[in-house]
Amino acid sequence: MKVIELTRFGLDGLVAAERPVPTPGHGEVLVRLKGASLNFHDIATLLGMANPRMKLPCVPLSDGAGEIAGLGAGVTGLTIGTRVASTFFPRWQSGAPTRWKLSDVPGEQRDGCWADYVVLPADAVVPVPEHLTDLEAATLPCAALTAWRAVVVEAKVKAGDRVLLQGTGGVSLFALQFAKLLGAETIITSSSDEKLARAQALGADHTINYKTTPQWGKRARELSGGEGVDLVVEVGGSGTFNESLNALKIGGHISMIGVLTGVADVIPTAKIMSMNAAVKGITVGSREDFLAMNRAIAVAKLKPVIGQVLPFAQAKEAYALMQRGGHFGKIAIDLTA
Amino acid sequence: MKVIELTRFGLDGLVAAERPVPTPGHGEVLVRLKGASLNFHDIATLLGMANPRMKLPCVPLSDGAGEIAGLGAGVTGLTIGTRVASTFFPRWQSGAPTRWKLSDVPGEQRDGCWADYVVLPADAVVPVPEHLTDLEAATLPCAALTAWRAVVVEAKVKAGDRVLLQGTGGVSLFALQFAKLLGAETIITSSSDEKLARAQALGADHTINYKTTPQWGKRARELSGGEGVDLVVEVGGSGTFNESLNALKIGGHISMIGVLTGVADVIPTAKIMSMNAAVKGITVGSREDFLAMNRAIAVAKLKPVIGQVLPFAQAKEAYALMQRGGHFGKIAIDLTA
Amino acid sequence: MKVIELTRFGLDGLVAAERPVPTPGHGEVLVRLKGASLNFHDIATLLGMANPRMKLPCVPLSDGAGEIAGLGAGVTGLTIGTRVASTFFPRWQSGAPTRWKLSDVPGEQRDGCWADYVVLPADAVVPVPEHLTDLEAATLPCAALTAWRAVVVEAKVKAGDRVLLQGTGGVSLFALQFAKLLGAETIITSSSDEKLARAQALGADHTINYKTTPQWGKRARELSGGEGVDLVVEVGGSGTFNESLNALKIGGHISMIGVLTGVADVIPTAKIMSMNAAVKGITVGSREDFLAMNRAIAVAKLKPVIGQVLPFAQAKEAYALMQRGGHFGKIAIDLTA
Amino acid sequence: MKVIELTRFGLDGLVAAERPVPTPGHGEVLVRLKGASLNFHDIATLLGMANPRMKLPCVPLSDGAGEIAGLGAGVTGLTIGTRVASTFFPRWQSGAPTRWKLSDVPGEQRDGCWADYVVLPADAVVPVPEHLTDLEAATLPCAALTAWRAVVVEAKVKAGDRVLLQGTGGVSLFALQFAKLLGAETIITSSSDEKLARAQALGADHTINYKTTPQWGKRARELSGGEGVDLVVEVGGSGTFNESLNALKIGGHISMIGVLTGVADVIPTAKIMSMNAAVKGITVGSREDFLAMNRAIAVAKLKPVIGQVLPFAQAKEAYALMQRGGHFGKIAIDLTA
Repeated sequence: MKVIELTRFGLDGLVAAERPVPTPGHGEVLVRLKGASLNFHDIATLLGMANPRMKLPCVPLSDGAGEIAGLGAGVTGLTIGTRVASTFFPRWQSGAPTRWKLSDVPGEQRDGCWADYVVLPADAVVPVPEHLTDLEAATLPCAALTAWRAVVVEAKVKAGDRVLLQGTGGVSLFALQFAKLLGAETIITSSSDEKLARAQALGADHTINYKTTPQWGKRARELSGGEGVDLVVEVGGSGTFNESLNALKIGGHISMIGVLTGVADVIPTAKIMSMNAAVKGITVGSREDFLAMNRAIAVAKLKPVIGQVLPFAQAKEAYALMQRGGHFGKIAIDLTA
Repeated sequence: MKVIELTRFGLDGLVAAERPVPTPGHGEVLVRLKGASLNFHDIATLLGMANPRMKLPCVPLSDGAGEIAGLGAGVTGLTIGTRVASTFFPRWQSGAPTRWKLSDVPGEQRDGCWADYVVLPADAVVPVPEHLTDLEAATLPCAALTAWRAVVVEAKVKAGDRVLLQGTGGVSLFALQFAKLLGAETIITSSSDEKLARAQALGADHTINYKTTPQWGKRARELSGGEGVDLVVEVGGSGTFNESLNALKIGGHISMIGVLTGVADVIPTAKIMSMNAAVKGITVGSREDFLAMNRAIAVAKLKPVIGQVLPFAQAKEAYALMQRGGHFGKIAIDLTA
Repeated sequence: MKVIELTRFGLDGLVAAERPVPTPGHGEVLVRLKGASLNFHDIATLLGMANPRMKLPCVPLSDGAGEIAGLGAGVTGLTIGTRVASTFFPRWQSGAPTRWKLSDVPGEQRDGCWADYVVLPADAVVPVPEHLTDLEAATLPCAALTAWRAVVVEAKVKAGDRVLLQGTGGVSLFALQFAKLLGAETIITSSSDEKLARAQALGADHTINYKTTPQWGKRARELSGGEGVDLVVEVGGSGTFNESLNALKIGGHISMIGVLTGVADVIPTAKIMSMNAAVKGITVGSREDFLAMNRAIAVAKLKPVIGQVLPFAQAKEAYALMQRGGHFGKIAIDLTA
Repeated sequence: MKVIELTRFGLDGLVAAERPVPTPGHGEVLVRLKGASLNFHDIATLLGMANPRMKLPCVPLSDGAGEIAGLGAGVTGLTIGTRVASTFFPRWQSGAPTRWKLSDVPGEQRDGCWADYVVLPADAVVPVPEHLTDLEAATLPCAALTAWRAVVVEAKVKAGDRVLLQGTGGVSLFALQFAKLLGAETIITSSSDEKLARAQALGADHTINYKTTPQWGKRARELSGGEGVDLVVEVGGSGTFNESLNALKIGGHISMIGVLTGVADVIPTAKIMSMNAAVKGITVGSREDFLAMNRAIAVAKLKPVIGQVLPFAQAKEAYALMQRGGHFGKIAIDLTA
């Protein structure tokens, strides 16, 4: 079968290779992959930042979708041909996260999805909503579930709440879609008016161009009746945190998800205190959360936003595109092309 | 000013009367009422069942809306002309209910809203969403807030959850609208195919005629992929409870709200246990919940369903209509007509 | 190895037998059992009520403890000699219960613990607190975890809350111990003043003899400053439910656990509503809850209350004793005697 | 009556003065004060940092206790002579905090408790546990309730959880006592072995001298089976935050309470994310939380730790002592001496 291998850290470490189709062991399944998608985690992995000690070569990409093509011994409840997506954390079935549950990530700690086939534990795949294409299903494991956990599981957004999204990357657009699905009022930021217009078409109630409005936090507060928003889905990580606090209402939530603008920053701890802010670190979610999200997606016939599709062979192009940023929504890989 | 007075229990105890416009005391406001609405609680009050020791005569109806017409000493944050609705429990500002908070109900323990004016504590009114008429605003205090608390506050329904509504009365239709607003999948029952069609137009995903399908609980479970629903908004109270359990998924919620079909019944306590069901008694909600609900209504531009409007003078007709049942949504009183 | 087998429903169906020591398969462990304990679930199983279609013969008893004596293929993180207890629901690792998670119960749907050895999935055992004997550890899987889930997981009892326990059986005494461990004020009922004295020695703050005080619910409310208790751990099931409601404060919890006095009863549904009561069905809990409970037991050096110990051979005597009731705390089986 | 007045920011702004005994208005009570206590908030107020625009002169101190000496019009449910404590946020009765609820603080936005008498809204006082002296009662409003909210309300600590306390100031010692009351395992840090010994006598399970063990976070993790603690009550604010993260388990809580070591710092936002940490800002709590805390204190007969008592006249000495730090527990003011 065809695979992409990361042979050493960096773009040049990505090479096309051939491997035999793997055989599923006890409790495992073989998945014939059709689509995959990229996340910032894949960039961090590529650069050796996510896991400096990772074993190379490794097939990259945590997120893939396709159909069950083989069942190992002892597997029940799945049948050949079932359309499934991978899970980011194969061991996180349900409940609260632990160090153990947050390990064994495909594409980093085990072979991932840039391949014709992948072997995964049977409980590390989930059936996907019928109305989604394989490419769309492949956008769910990391970005969609991260957004779902931030908006639904942790912040428990309800109708009428105000939610602030940063930029128009994969996580932010899923968070926008979920927040709208729940009846929330949404504000989204971008440096591009064209992207803001597209976000508005997706349901964003208010838009802020953070280039022309550097104090976007203050502006978001004004747009929230002066009270502030209930939730900021913080994907910047540090460079944006202070402005996020300015947007927040007393007792509001900040989902700390991304590291787009840095991994550490001077944070006004006293303001976190006085605002009674709830800052919650989030890395994806459990398989049970994934199943609940899929029900929501199926009921609403919600469609993921794919900004760009690349074929199997263009690994370096895809990573470079992801690194440059600027895409709208997700970057997907058509593994059949 | 014109009022309706309940002078003794029963329909014949309702009489039209004249009273001087009351004066708001310290911390109170005078509301010029424009609309009111009826709830089953008003029937229970009429019949002396809600409060056998209530002081008569009393102006009936818990629910009214209009505009601030006078401010007592010490009142801040409200201005003459602000459009407001009454709250069902004037003392329940926030937090968990207590015996004290669940007292002083207008129309039962203090004069209510079938009047040109009413005096209420300043924190016993809430501003109403701008897009609502006075009549629509008058449907919110009891029925809408009860549905909101059941669906949003207690059961914490999220997108993709399954919710079962019983019948097409005021609480059930609000619960239907809120469940849809949150992205849930909904099933509604009625004995009338015509009403089921109207419910479907409001967003119901599935309908069951409980006359032709007496085992509607089992049918609801089938419509829920065999797994059962996440929430039943139980307005029957006892006659319907067993069938509600049949509809429920393991660990699901039953909001115990109404007494339409009885106040006590043989309940399979062992089944509550084995299903790990969560049965939650609900009587309306707090003022803070009301404010949150109003934000949701405002963001979604949600419109309450009013089945029938009667003028000020037709008190007996309105109560009789409520007792007969069979209306779709709320019965409202146009106090200006 | 020695086992007790249930060959047909009823006491006479219990027979001693010899079987070969089983071999753990992939992902399974072999446990050398030292102690076991009885629960009402075992009585319901014996009588064919828990599972009329169960496959016989079956080794009874859900609850056992001992040490790991063999590891199947693919098992990691456990070593020979580790002291462990069984879990009641082998598939319920964490999260909310589902029909699937609530299946495969030892002693009912698979061979249980009245045996020298048992094979269980590796994630269906938990390490036990060091300070406990094997017999004490064998009392935890069903009764202790049920009490823990009622008091800690569902009702979230905190210091200063009031908790009402019914009788002095296994679940009630564990619930008493956990409630005290959390700083709650406790009230316990019994028909025996002698048992009430023993309960007081275990930490009960107030006692009520329900024979001499049939309106024990009202009495419990008086003992609660007239306000009522925060939680009733309801083990009667139906015969006691109405009185439990009388003991409850507005918005209080009733954990519906047992069926001691019946499986169905006339329940005042209207009162559940007006009191805003939260009635929660409970059957044991997840493995993650078990681990958390064990940490609490270890930190507090809490000792389970064993009322009576019987040797391996006295199966009929043990079941008969359980059926008669009247024991204080748990009935344990010394499998080494 | 005697009062201390803050006439301008700084220690020298504190002067003794005489004022007429105030008269309670509608809905207010007059409290004859017997004891008061100091908090870091009082230092921040003294220095003009808490509220640079505060109206001077102002009677300082948020926390006081005494007895009801007068009732304004419309006050029900309180009687002359009832022993009460003040609340830090008079408007925060229950529910989630808002900007409005977090205002009107005695000693900052209205006259406080360094006086023979104070007038407060009737719902801005709470009855105090009988077993407490007036001085002990006066330690509750800010420090105890802050600790209660951190440990019980927000982090929902349960038996068996691990809790890390920083230093032996008022909040940390209350948090220690509450954590022990709930059955948690506790670790406490200090620079003084003598204080650590006193903390151990109060129930601390493990102690760390952070002078001799600068990597106290790592040490706390080791003391937590390598897994990390469930909760850090963070009173340093910024200088200690990174080490707190090192102590934490995946998914653990950090209560952000204090600013002892700074109001802003370089924070590893990426680590908050990857650890799925929950960082929650906390400023005191609601009146309903206060009442619940008082029940817990009453049931456990818990005694606040007062390190030092000063008489009415020694205002400057008391503030200087607080600023120097180094006290064990609370600094109380005997207003009758």
